[in-house]
Amino acid sequence: MRRTPSRRHPETGLAPGTLVHVGQRRTESTKITVFQYDAANVQERELTGVEECREYTKYAGVLWINIDGIHDISVVESIGRLFDIHPLVMEDIANTGQRPKIEEYDGYLFVIAKMIYEVAETKQLRSEQVSIVLTPRVVISFQEQEGDVFDPVRERLRTAKGIVRQRGSDYLAYCLVDAIVDHYFLIMENLEDRIFPLEEQVVDDPQPQVLKSMHLLKSDLVFLRRSLWPLREMLGRLDRDRHPLIRKDTRPFLRDVQDHTIQVIEMLESFQEIVSGLMDVHLTSISNRMNNVMKLLTVIATIFIPLTFIAGVYGMNFKHMPELAWRWGYPAVLGVMLLVFIGMLIFFRRKKWL
Amino acid sequence: MRRTPSRRHPETGLAPGTLVHVGQRRTESTKITVFQYDAANVQERELTGVEECREYTKYAGVLWINIDGIHDISVVESIGRLFDIHPLVMEDIANTGQRPKIEEYDGYLFVIAKMIYEVAETKQLRSEQVSIVLTPRVVISFQEQEGDVFDPVRERLRTAKGIVRQRGSDYLAYCLVDAIVDHYFLIMENLEDRIFPLEEQVVDDPQPQVLKSMHLLKSDLVFLRRSLWPLREMLGRLDRDRHPLIRKDTRPFLRDVQDHTIQVIEMLESFQEIVSGLMDVHLTSISNRMNNVMKLLTVIATIFIPLTFIAGVYGMNFKHMPELAWRWGYPAVLGVMLLVFIGMLIFFRRKKWL
Amino acid sequence: MRRTPSRRHPETGLAPGTLVHVGQRRTESTKITVFQYDAANVQERELTGVEECREYTKYAGVLWINIDGIHDISVVESIGRLFDIHPLVMEDIANTGQRPKIEEYDGYLFVIAKMIYEVAETKQLRSEQVSIVLTPRVVISFQEQEGDVFDPVRERLRTAKGIVRQRGSDYLAYCLVDAIVDHYFLIMENLEDRIFPLEEQVVDDPQPQVLKSMHLLKSDLVFLRRSLWPLREMLGRLDRDRHPLIRKDTRPFLRDVQDHTIQVIEMLESFQEIVSGLMDVHLTSISNRMNNVMKLLTVIATIFIPLTFIAGVYGMNFKHMPELAWRWGYPAVLGVMLLVFIGMLIFFRRKKWL
Amino acid sequence: MRRTPSRRHPETGLAPGTLVHVGQRRTESTKITVFQYDAANVQERELTGVEECREYTKYAGVLWINIDGIHDISVVESIGRLFDIHPLVMEDIANTGQRPKIEEYDGYLFVIAKMIYEVAETKQLRSEQVSIVLTPRVVISFQEQEGDVFDPVRERLRTAKGIVRQRGSDYLAYCLVDAIVDHYFLIMENLEDRIFPLEEQVVDDPQPQVLKSMHLLKSDLVFLRRSLWPLREMLGRLDRDRHPLIRKDTRPFLRDVQDHTIQVIEMLESFQEIVSGLMDVHLTSISNRMNNVMKLLTVIATIFIPLTFIAGVYGMNFKHMPELAWRWGYPAVLGVMLLVFIGMLIFFRRKKWL
Amino acid sequence: MRRTPSRRHPETGLAPGTLVHVGQRRTESTKITVFQYDAANVQERELTGVEECREYTKYAGVLWINIDGIHDISVVESIGRLFDIHPLVMEDIANTGQRPKIEEYDGYLFVIAKMIYEVAETKQLRSEQVSIVLTPRVVISFQEQEGDVFDPVRERLRTAKGIVRQRGSDYLAYCLVDAIVDHYFLIMENLEDRIFPLEEQVVDDPQPQVLKSMHLLKSDLVFLRRSLWPLREMLGRLDRDRHPLIRKDTRPFLRDVQDHTIQVIEMLESFQEIVSGLMDVHLTSISNRMNNVMKLLTVIATIFIPLTFIAGVYGMNFKHMPELAWRWGYPAVLGVMLLVFIGMLIFFRRKKWL
Repeated sequence: MRRTPSRRHPETGLAPGTLVHVGQRRTESTKITVFQYDAANVQERELTGVEECREYTKYAGVLWINIDGIHDISVVESIGRLFDIHPLVMEDIANTGQRPKIEEYDGYLFVIAKMIYEVAETKQLRSEQVSIVLTPRVVISFQEQEGDVFDPVRERLRTAKGIVRQRGSDYLAYCLVDAIVDHYFLIMENLEDRIFPLEEQVVDDPQPQVLKSMHLLKSDLVFLRRSLWPLREMLGRLDRDRHPLIRKDTRPFLRDVQDHTIQVIEMLESFQEIVSGLMDVHLTSISNRMNNVMKLLTVIATIFIPLTFIAGVYGMNFKHMPELAWRWGYPAVLGVMLLVFIGMLIFFRRKKWL
Repeated sequence: MRRTPSRRHPETGLAPGTLVHVGQRRTESTKITVFQYDAANVQERELTGVEECREYTKYAGVLWINIDGIHDISVVESIGRLFDIHPLVMEDIANTGQRPKIEEYDGYLFVIAKMIYEVAETKQLRSEQVSIVLTPRVVISFQEQEGDVFDPVRERLRTAKGIVRQRGSDYLAYCLVDAIVDHYFLIMENLEDRIFPLEEQVVDDPQPQVLKSMHLLKSDLVFLRRSLWPLREMLGRLDRDRHPLIRKDTRPFLRDVQDHTIQVIEMLESFQEIVSGLMDVHLTSISNRMNNVMKLLTVIATIFIPLTFIAGVYGMNFKHMPELAWRWGYPAVLGVMLLVFIGMLIFFRRKKWL
Repeated sequence: MRRTPSRRHPETGLAPGTLVHVGQRRTESTKITVFQYDAANVQERELTGVEECREYTKYAGVLWINIDGIHDISVVESIGRLFDIHPLVMEDIANTGQRPKIEEYDGYLFVIAKMIYEVAETKQLRSEQVSIVLTPRVVISFQEQEGDVFDPVRERLRTAKGIVRQRGSDYLAYCLVDAIVDHYFLIMENLEDRIFPLEEQVVDDPQPQVLKSMHLLKSDLVFLRRSLWPLREMLGRLDRDRHPLIRKDTRPFLRDVQDHTIQVIEMLESFQEIVSGLMDVHLTSISNRMNNVMKLLTVIATIFIPLTFIAGVYGMNFKHMPELAWRWGYPAVLGVMLLVFIGMLIFFRRKKWL
Repeated sequence: MRRTPSRRHPETGLAPGTLVHVGQRRTESTKITVFQYDAANVQERELTGVEECREYTKYAGVLWINIDGIHDISVVESIGRLFDIHPLVMEDIANTGQRPKIEEYDGYLFVIAKMIYEVAETKQLRSEQVSIVLTPRVVISFQEQEGDVFDPVRERLRTAKGIVRQRGSDYLAYCLVDAIVDHYFLIMENLEDRIFPLEEQVVDDPQPQVLKSMHLLKSDLVFLRRSLWPLREMLGRLDRDRHPLIRKDTRPFLRDVQDHTIQVIEMLESFQEIVSGLMDVHLTSISNRMNNVMKLLTVIATIFIPLTFIAGVYGMNFKHMPELAWRWGYPAVLGVMLLVFIGMLIFFRRKKWL
Repeated sequence: MRRTPSRRHPETGLAPGTLVHVGQRRTESTKITVFQYDAANVQERELTGVEECREYTKYAGVLWINIDGIHDISVVESIGRLFDIHPLVMEDIANTGQRPKIEEYDGYLFVIAKMIYEVAETKQLRSEQVSIVLTPRVVISFQEQEGDVFDPVRERLRTAKGIVRQRGSDYLAYCLVDAIVDHYFLIMENLEDRIFPLEEQVVDDPQPQVLKSMHLLKSDLVFLRRSLWPLREMLGRLDRDRHPLIRKDTRPFLRDVQDHTIQVIEMLESFQEIVSGLMDVHLTSISNRMNNVMKLLTVIATIFIPLTFIAGVYGMNFKHMPELAWRWGYPAVLGVMLLVFIGMLIFFRRKKWL
């Protein structure tokens, strides 16, 4: 299995702004849900078509349209036409190989982030692209498939917990990004749980399969950093640029989520340094083991090869070998052998090989 | 074969601005094609000489002159004189060892990019220099040889697909650069297809030829990064400088192609990290295997060398070796040997060598 | 044991600004102590509840409130309400996984630093988060548990040693940060005391357990750098921004503590380079040793295997082996063996293996 | 031989501005040549003393004074007095251990560059310091010895080829720097010719002397980069600062030579990456080979040691060894040995060692 | 011995500005010398106490006070009071673990630099902290012990050589820093003299003690870079900030000494790269040697083990071994052995192992 996210590019050479879905092919139908709320009321519905959105845009209050499934290009296109979104933005939404970024357009902000999740069966990390379009009163979020990290936000909307219902669309957009970043902490813990046993294993019992785990871990870390660095950049830019769509009292929250991103990145970099170090430790550990194997071989060979030679000498069939006829020849040779044996043992003991 | 692009410099010491072709020698004749278009009409022709260009410059609309083959210096020179291009620009067009860059001159922009393609037979990466001169109404592109990635652009010109026919020369130049960058995604996929089996092989079956593949891959990555980094820089500068030749509505497109470049570079850097890691994995894997080889040798030697010694002792020809005459001497010795053998097996089993 | 600080994130998905304690669970009760002082007087008391603080805020002079134990969320919350602190600040105080930072709010500065200490039994490094809120007349410090590095500051407050009693709350905050940074020097010395014997060992006697020590040391260095770099950044920003809360005569002191931080970081980086180097030295040292082992084995085998072969030849039982019957056959063969033996010795001596 | 340039410093502790020649001691006499030219005329002469320069400075047109040999301090000093040059500049000219740089003084620019050449016999790279003083009408160049890369410039001056005779002293200075940078391309090709065979050798036939070549190559690359980076910096600064001595129409040329420098640096860095990679490949290749050696040894030993043991058993001299008397004992044992032999072969074939 | 400079911090927790000597304990008494000079006169004296300084401050001209030995805190304190120096400066002077820096205070500049010297007996590098306080007319320098690199400056003061007597205190301070930096060149040469033989040894004869030398060298390079980088920074800042205490005609000299610092740092970095490379070369060299050892063992074992087996077969005591009775059995077996022997030799010759 490829561990890097699906990054197949469409047939290159299409006119810029052409909408083509790029990503994992899916067959489920696209799901559109809306939340319409202000401090007093909240309304939640699942729509059957894009056209229904139009009526919601008429009311006051904040509107959140969430689209699960972007493989149905026609839906994405309709939304784009409805809210008058630039064709390049639509292309980026449909093509899931984008890097996290933020782009300003007249009247709206366009944000791409990566939601990381662990595939339950294979323990592999995958990323899902979440595109957010923020206008003064509407937030539109596009996801690749159902199932996300926004449930706590929905819950807060429904129950008016926290301050989200008192704030505008910019705060809602912040909540979505915050939920995504918060989820990285869980991923970090999972990673730590994979690093921790490796540390033990590598020093105490360096098995070959450890190598594979370390390589997978390393690739996962590279992959994660690639999703996170642009996020940090993007949030930093949002902080610096003071875009009019972001109200002043939302800014400390943006700084907070930027802070969390930096925290995750620093953990990630610590992990990378530690895993890199583990590779060296592993190699050295193997060398250490080989050294021990060689020592054993050398001890055995060095002790017995000379003894075998002595035995070989007295196994020769010469007629005239006076020692053979001596009364104490045999015990004498055995004695000599014993002396050699003991001498060797002392020698190796001194060399600390035994 | 050299994997780095031909970077032979001409006899150093020529006066600056002297036109000398530097690159692979080619014998095909130079081919000049022009596209003359506006929103309503498009005209496409292959010219027999540079002089014919002159008449096309008189009409309104955008003119795209494409020259395939720069080894015929006289053609390049004529074009240069016709459009009054700085001698240093002409020198850079003829010398294919340039790095991607953008330079501003009075009345025109000069862009150099690298088109990467894979030689079909050898699977090696090669680069071809594409030089683009952008004036308010004319785009001139110079390529080393026929065959390029611009066919989709030509198709769109002919069929008025997309918006290219409604826009000016700056949008055409963008389309050319975009086509080049888009092509990098294909190269990336090919690279991924080379990395993927290596990852499997290195851990499971580290053959020596893997080493060669990895080294080739690494050099290709170094070579690609060298073509891409200046492109990123160049596009960034174009974005910042807001050159009057680039109309305002073309700018989002430039930002988009810059984005794609960054995406390719980040993939490339991930690949580099992964391939670097693979090298370590490979070395460790070999050490692991050697360890196994050594273990086998040690087990065999450690078991049989002492046994052979015992057999050697009783092969000695001393007259007075009472054991030899014993009735159960032989079975006793065989028994001792068996005990040693079993003891050794248990010892190695405990050490987990067997 | 995990060496990285407890960085368990709470159930992600809480509303931003929700107070949840994240860190090691503790059962001791929270302790609140106050210092109220001016140049002339100093008063020190341990409070039983947050409400008592209120009366202290009425007096002139500087007030230092120190809270040991943040696991009792209600205490932190009361303090927050009393001094009107932003919910995000309160959240950061309670969540001990923050990175050192400084944040400006209307009317107060919020500082997070990491106090490093060595767990006595295990010699492991741990960090404790110290959060400081600086208002014009009050300093509030939050610590995870009792026992800190502020005793010298307290002593100076009590005895009016130094100038702390003549200065304002900003100088007190500086004193606290300075005490934390000063403590890093002790940690550095402990690290040096761990590196020093490793250097000796690695070259002279590379035992496998050295590997484990080196890996632990490396992880500790990574961990420390992660606590220190943001501190440096934070102090640098404080210096640049010239916040009105920091009086002009306190600035040289801030520069001084920033200087100390840089000094510690540079030591740390030297240590990292040295430990990295040690890893290579260790690996090379092991290879050297293996080389010696192999040489011994080769010398022994190369000398005795041919001799044993000769003995084996004359141990064959052929009827017609004329040498066996020769009068001087046996001594002659022994002589040949001796010659081979001496020849080999000379050969190895020349190769400098003996 | 030292590969780094002679960087012996004089007795440290001299007053700043004291002229002491630092560099290779030479005995040839110093040679002074002048070119006096304008668009119409050119005059070329070799002078016998510095005083003769004085009269040339009176004429209109550009004057180029070239001094070959700076070991004769008196000549350098006279020139310095004649053109009123700052003592620190004179010190830098005489001390050949400078790094490339550009310095502005009232009325003149001072440029130091490094000319790299290959010593014909030893194939080693050496650098020669070229110092250029540029005043509005005079260019003075100082070289360590005769023989340089300026002949093409001289030729163009004599034959009025190119535009050098129409331009001022700034263009001449540019030509000199350009000639130096152009020469680097030749050096690059030589380096590539050294890297190319190494790549083949390292993978296919890793001989120990390859190691030496690689180390030499690496040191040469480090040495070259050290000469080139400051040159890049210096040209970049010249471009940014828009010094009044550099006329506007000379600037594109300066940008061009800066471009060439960047090109050379990027090649250099690619080379460094490739050579670094080769080191790893070499080490891995050696491990691979050793693995093969070990496999052969293990196969032979594992097959024959047990067989020899069996032969040893039946070479024992026990009186009561019933097998010895059996009619088919000998063939049976031979048969067993054959079975063991074949079994081992199959075993190793399965392990793919044979 | 510790190679890093004594960096023992005093009992942490002292009030900032408290004077405590940190460094090597010394018993010699503190020595105070003054130079009072202007263009016409120079007066040099050794003082017995700090109070004597007071009268010198009354005269016109430049005053240089040099203190050898800072372990006598009372002397440092008196100087501080006499010239009204900030307590933090005094603390830094007394604590020798500072990093090179420059600090501006009202009316004076405070400079810390590191003087490197080689301990004659052990060839180890040590650093001594030199603190310089520069006021408009007075330069005060503090050194840890007698013996420094300022003798040439003193000589120039006495003999009015150079321009130092015509300039102000800023030029004197420059001279002191210049003398310190100049001394680094000597250290560089010593380092080169240590690297040079290592290069030879590592490739041609990799002995284990080389490893120790390399590690020492590496640590020394790390240590030196740590002293030099801040110096470079400090001089750069002095150049940029144009402090009023630095007269305009002193600035080119400061730029010159900054240049020298950069030169030393670049040498240092080249050295680091070369030494890092040497480590790899060493490891590879050892692997190469081991490979040779293994080849010899394998050749010997592979040739003689099968031969010994053959001899063993005919040493068996079976009654019915027809070959034993053959007339030419023995010569035939010897012949077979010879054939095997020659075959093996050819085999190994082909594999280029012999």
